[in-house]
Amino acid sequence: ILSAAKASAGRLEGKLREKTLTLDTLNPQVKAVEYAVRGPIVIKAGEIERYLEEGGTKPFSEVIKANIGDAHAMGQQPITFLRQVVALCTFPELMDSPSFPEDAKWRARRILQGCGGHSLGSYSASPGVECIRKDIAAYIEQRDEGVPSDWENIYLTTGASDGIMTILRLLVSGKDSSRTGVMIPIPQYPLYSAAISEMDAVQVNYYLDEDNCWALDINELYRAYQAAKLHCQPRVICIINPGNPTGQVQSKKCIEEVLHFAYEENLFVMSDEVYQDNVYTPDCQFHSFKKVLYEMGPEYFNSVELASFHSTSKGYTGECGFRGGYMEVINMDPEVKAQMVKLLSVRLCPPLAGQAAMDVIVNPPQPDEHSYKQFRQEKSSVLGALADKAKLTEQILNAVPGIKCNPVQGAMYAFPRIFIPPKAVEEAKALGMQPDMFYCLRLLEETGICVVPGSGFGQKDGTYHFRMTILPSIEKLKVLLGKVRDFHIRFLKEYSALE
Amino acid sequence: ILSAAKASAGRLEGKLREKTLTLDTLNPQVKAVEYAVRGPIVIKAGEIERYLEEGGTKPFSEVIKANIGDAHAMGQQPITFLRQVVALCTFPELMDSPSFPEDAKWRARRILQGCGGHSLGSYSASPGVECIRKDIAAYIEQRDEGVPSDWENIYLTTGASDGIMTILRLLVSGKDSSRTGVMIPIPQYPLYSAAISEMDAVQVNYYLDEDNCWALDINELYRAYQAAKLHCQPRVICIINPGNPTGQVQSKKCIEEVLHFAYEENLFVMSDEVYQDNVYTPDCQFHSFKKVLYEMGPEYFNSVELASFHSTSKGYTGECGFRGGYMEVINMDPEVKAQMVKLLSVRLCPPLAGQAAMDVIVNPPQPDEHSYKQFRQEKSSVLGALADKAKLTEQILNAVPGIKCNPVQGAMYAFPRIFIPPKAVEEAKALGMQPDMFYCLRLLEETGICVVPGSGFGQKDGTYHFRMTILPSIEKLKVLLGKVRDFHIRFLKEYSALE
Repeated sequence: ILSAAKASAGRLEGKLREKTLTLDTLNPQVKAVEYAVRGPIVIKAGEIERYLEEGGTKPFSEVIKANIGDAHAMGQQPITFLRQVVALCTFPELMDSPSFPEDAKWRARRILQGCGGHSLGSYSASPGVECIRKDIAAYIEQRDEGVPSDWENIYLTTGASDGIMTILRLLVSGKDSSRTGVMIPIPQYPLYSAAISEMDAVQVNYYLDEDNCWALDINELYRAYQAAKLHCQPRVICIINPGNPTGQVQSKKCIEEVLHFAYEENLFVMSDEVYQDNVYTPDCQFHSFKKVLYEMGPEYFNSVELASFHSTSKGYTGECGFRGGYMEVINMDPEVKAQMVKLLSVRLCPPLAGQAAMDVIVNPPQPDEHSYKQFRQEKSSVLGALADKAKLTEQILNAVPGIKCNPVQGAMYAFPRIFIPPKAVEEAKALGMQPDMFYCLRLLEETGICVVPGSGFGQKDGTYHFRMTILPSIEKLKVLLGKVRDFHIRFLKEYSALE
Repeated sequence: ILSAAKASAGRLEGKLREKTLTLDTLNPQVKAVEYAVRGPIVIKAGEIERYLEEGGTKPFSEVIKANIGDAHAMGQQPITFLRQVVALCTFPELMDSPSFPEDAKWRARRILQGCGGHSLGSYSASPGVECIRKDIAAYIEQRDEGVPSDWENIYLTTGASDGIMTILRLLVSGKDSSRTGVMIPIPQYPLYSAAISEMDAVQVNYYLDEDNCWALDINELYRAYQAAKLHCQPRVICIINPGNPTGQVQSKKCIEEVLHFAYEENLFVMSDEVYQDNVYTPDCQFHSFKKVLYEMGPEYFNSVELASFHSTSKGYTGECGFRGGYMEVINMDPEVKAQMVKLLSVRLCPPLAGQAAMDVIVNPPQPDEHSYKQFRQEKSSVLGALADKAKLTEQILNAVPGIKCNPVQGAMYAFPRIFIPPKAVEEAKALGMQPDMFYCLRLLEETGICVVPGSGFGQKDGTYHFRMTILPSIEKLKVLLGKVRDFHIRFLKEYSALE
């Protein structure tokens, strides 16, 4: 107490209290995190939006945000049946309303029966509501044409991100002297690199083959693994299929090779399959890692540790705000599983409304049910529009000189390669900026279009890209792509003229 | 590739593939986490429940779970108005329904206007929906009788736990050589100790004064701080007010002392105020840390870094499943704030239904609105019942020989001290068990009542406690307390007879 009194006296003499938390004392792992999808360019877009709202003028009247896979924000309508079920769960008095169909009521009643006190306001068990876990397992079995799924391997999550962070947390120890390597595709969805930074793991890049429609080349996997072995212990491989930001759908053969590789090298497999319902080109098909593993035989199916992730945020529902998702985890050591459940229990449980939304996705109206027709129509309308927009985006971009875009086979993004003239690269570097960041900032300033520079996802040195979503309405998307084209041509002209 | 082929050959010769993730290779920080509220005793309770469901017999017919503050699971009814607003946001077609009041519709419309595409299914900005942040700031100003609150200091969270983890993540670096000390009360809510273990910080215990109704003694704070300084750098102090598991409500004088201490020693203050609406005894009043800081004058109010946490899960709403909450963060370095927003953005946003629920709590029906009467009646019915149960619990427990319970001034728990005879202590130790765990397991096995041992929260050496919620209905609570009394007397007799 004496020393405190002394300190107090010192301060009264005029010394200002310093902050305890400054950029210098901040956890350096937080500082290292980068997340381009909501990064500097998006902050800038928000500033411009406010400027326009306040009456400022720009060469455009609105900012079009094609930076994030946020379908409803881009005008996509919710699936009626999903919202009916969640509303019924939220306000069970609606069970008496004749304007809600029986099939929705039946599902809501069943979910509420699985909730403590029959209320969406109670905590669920940490892995989620039991009947929802069972519905998910049944859905997976059907999706994978009979490959068994055990509901006790299903864990509801707060969006897929939460599940991915949980599995990485188990694998990565910041203290470990032989540091944990996490293999991720490049380009990748920056949740992975952000999680790796935050947990102080080692990011091990394997490059997708742009010239081969972003395919995953097994030789590149071995190369990356061997190189990483020199300075860390690679313990997990992450795959995103269909790809984000790249939009490719992996072939069955490629998945087999990845699983064989993981089997051989004793890697934990994390398969991010949140776009499993978003496949647009007729010659592509979604193959789940689990099903392929099963078909490789019991030696593989009973041994490779695999976590696969799904979400309410993508697919045809696009329910991002509900933060719903699940992971299926197979072949996990039972003792580790108990530890994971303990870790999950600290956060109590995923949001119940998101769990209910997930339940509808895995247990949609059946042909003999009242809501089937409307559900089917809404679902195919969303997926049909996305397929049209995927095709349109690819076509328009590929008609622009200096832009080359692989087919958008799946997911919700185009990731075109852009030619940036050397003079523009120089100018960007002089500004201490990545050339594609410079490009995207100019695009934003001149057209109001907000896309994310390829450097935020990773790309081969000397190549430049951006990621844009295909989510705007077809009319708006045409405007957007037209503006990109005109901007790009102008940009090329400006910087080529300087040469 | 050659080495892989070799490895493959080795495996074909009969070596089984080892798991990559085992208890040995698991992140040791995960292993170190403990969370008693959903710990071994709760797992045991679940097993007994299933055993009973399957027709097994026990000396009781049901398990009563008094282990967790899960109001709805214990039969508490939701606040109608809150659920109406969330249902309207979820299914806006209900805006046309005459059975929903205009005041609920008005709020739902306003929330949806703040959402991308006017949909609860879009991501919000990472700190939350802007109009909800503004409502929260207005609520705080009103609660604190005019102390200013800036909505840009408000961050919506996924329950309070998420906010607490976020702030600790900024402060704690696992890599740091001078390790970060986190001061927490003992007894504490085990989220804190779990987070500290997970992040590899140093837990610095300050003991609440059981003999003085669990008051926080400033001399004890200095003692704990000075002792900790020898082996770590204490940088943050956590306070839970009203107390969990201890139920005390802190005096204004005590809060002033804590804030002065934090000011002097340059500590970040985290005040867990999720029970701010749960104060039961007429001689106690909730004082927010922020308001007290304000009243200490600008030198304090403009310098002490303070984060305070609130939640939809407690209070009179008890909406745990919505995972709603917020934190108000003042005096944070602007650069650190930008880093925090970046970190939050990786997880995208808190669930929108939880954000909407939070909005109703801070923006409830006003006296001139249609829903006011029902809202007021429901609110006071819940809080009145809790006050009755707090009193009843204290009275019945204190009438049992060998049990001593401080008044439950606030929150949702009693944390009685229990006398455990030396012979029982010995028996527990022979079983490798904490004596209060032994006691609680016996209680569960013999009566079906599930409470959490004091050792899960921390307690002075040689003292024993358990935490029970006061949430069961008054009838069930009487049964529960009667069973605890009978069990305790039996237990004392059994182990005293042995002496």
